[in-house]
Amino acid sequence: MTAVRIERLALIGLGLIGGSLSLALKSAGVVGEVVGYSRQLATRLRAQELGLIDRPADSVAEAVQGADLVFIATPVQAMGGVFAQMIETLAPDALITDGGSVKGAVVAAAQAAMPEGQWRQFVPGHPIAGTEHSGPDAAFATLYHGQRVILTPLPENDPTQVARVEAIWRVAGAVVEHMTVPHHDHVLAATSHLPHLAAFGLVNALARLEERYEVFRYAAGGFRDFTRIASSDPAMWRDICLANRAELVPMLDHYLAELQGLRRLMESADSDGLAQAFAEAKAVRDALYRPQSTH
Amino acid sequence: MTAVRIERLALIGLGLIGGSLSLALKSAGVVGEVVGYSRQLATRLRAQELGLIDRPADSVAEAVQGADLVFIATPVQAMGGVFAQMIETLAPDALITDGGSVKGAVVAAAQAAMPEGQWRQFVPGHPIAGTEHSGPDAAFATLYHGQRVILTPLPENDPTQVARVEAIWRVAGAVVEHMTVPHHDHVLAATSHLPHLAAFGLVNALARLEERYEVFRYAAGGFRDFTRIASSDPAMWRDICLANRAELVPMLDHYLAELQGLRRLMESADSDGLAQAFAEAKAVRDALYRPQSTH
Repeated sequence: MTAVRIERLALIGLGLIGGSLSLALKSAGVVGEVVGYSRQLATRLRAQELGLIDRPADSVAEAVQGADLVFIATPVQAMGGVFAQMIETLAPDALITDGGSVKGAVVAAAQAAMPEGQWRQFVPGHPIAGTEHSGPDAAFATLYHGQRVILTPLPENDPTQVARVEAIWRVAGAVVEHMTVPHHDHVLAATSHLPHLAAFGLVNALARLEERYEVFRYAAGGFRDFTRIASSDPAMWRDICLANRAELVPMLDHYLAELQGLRRLMESADSDGLAQAFAEAKAVRDALYRPQSTH
Repeated sequence: MTAVRIERLALIGLGLIGGSLSLALKSAGVVGEVVGYSRQLATRLRAQELGLIDRPADSVAEAVQGADLVFIATPVQAMGGVFAQMIETLAPDALITDGGSVKGAVVAAAQAAMPEGQWRQFVPGHPIAGTEHSGPDAAFATLYHGQRVILTPLPENDPTQVARVEAIWRVAGAVVEHMTVPHHDHVLAATSHLPHLAAFGLVNALARLEERYEVFRYAAGGFRDFTRIASSDPAMWRDICLANRAELVPMLDHYLAELQGLRRLMESADSDGLAQAFAEAKAVRDALYRPQSTH
């Protein structure tokens, strides 16, 4: 495995995902300089103050100038604009990767914004990590320790560039896996995007009840756990839901059908049917998490 | 406040809820003898071994004989049978209470099974506490510490009996509040029963996907928290859903309408609408749990 060395990292988007990768690479001592850009000046200054970046840039174009690695960690809907703004200054041997939760829309945005010679420099990736907190203050160096990062390399990518992205994520402590772009978007719609939608919807459904204050007062621990992800960043999740709606809408329909099935079992007082449905869910859930529940 | 003293507690149902109340009262030194009944002999013996009860009984009738307090902690659908089996041996001054998650169906069952002189001895209650574990081994003395117990006294209850149930729960460390029976069932449908249904449904929806193994492999922390309650006891939840279906089916419809609304926003690519829906949910969730998130 080649030793990782980054002369200049351009960080576009200075929140939890980008900031944490920068801190991880800095603490591993593999990066020379980190130049950062975010739309808000206050965010750039805060990121510098926190040591996420060494130097703020005034534009995407300025940030990527002279960088050998560009990491895009903005909300996914903003990535098209980011790609468009780097075409003039991107070095021909620079490697681009990203942290977007949706891959199809991001690849399409790169291909629409850049000439092929440049979008081939983009190796799409998705770290499966995060907390419900966001922004530069949420970043920490060990966010990726033991977490999975899914790379969705394009057929047009240079294999040595793909290997380099892998090595970089390993330095940050992550476990790297590969998927195709469409498969990634399907799997993530199920495991991440749908649960977020279900949690946002549940909180809003209860908030619209006349008895909302009382209802929330009596909410027990289960509700708290269940809805933690509803505290996630709204703009980020709007972007994800829109960017992956081709996968997410059918996945939501699949969930709606399941809930309709439970509704029918209740309506017909089908005691055995309900018990079986709940027992199946418990068996799946227990099998999934039993090995991990010991630590 | 009168000092609590229980000469003989009859515990019907020897799982987490009943066993934990017994351990709490025993450790407070306020109970003389605990006689326990559960349908399974093995459960009775295990409960005795664990010290949840001092003596097993072979029937409900035998367990309640000579008891001044009867605590029913079986699944709610079994409570009708329990009431019917105690009419011959219940002492006229005995106090009955329960731990059922649904109150309307349990009150109706008591009124159907017992003469009025007896069901007036029943002060319905619901401790808002629990874990996803069940059975006698899950019981522990501090389960109710700082947790809410909702009593739903009947107009026919003797106020001194209501006060006695309150005092008993306070000995166990709980905070006692009152609601009417229908209001309890409405509020709990929202805060507890619907979230369980949503979690069971989500796990089953994903388990039915062709890619189920891969899907679960990539499930992140949010999914794990979100679905923890899907590990709850299936028979208990079947009972709750059926016993409270008059409240739960409309509450589920309310949730389905909310999810359909999110679906429409995605279909029409309504970026502002989606962001607003997610921001509302985040604001509600953050306001709810911010005070507690510091510990």
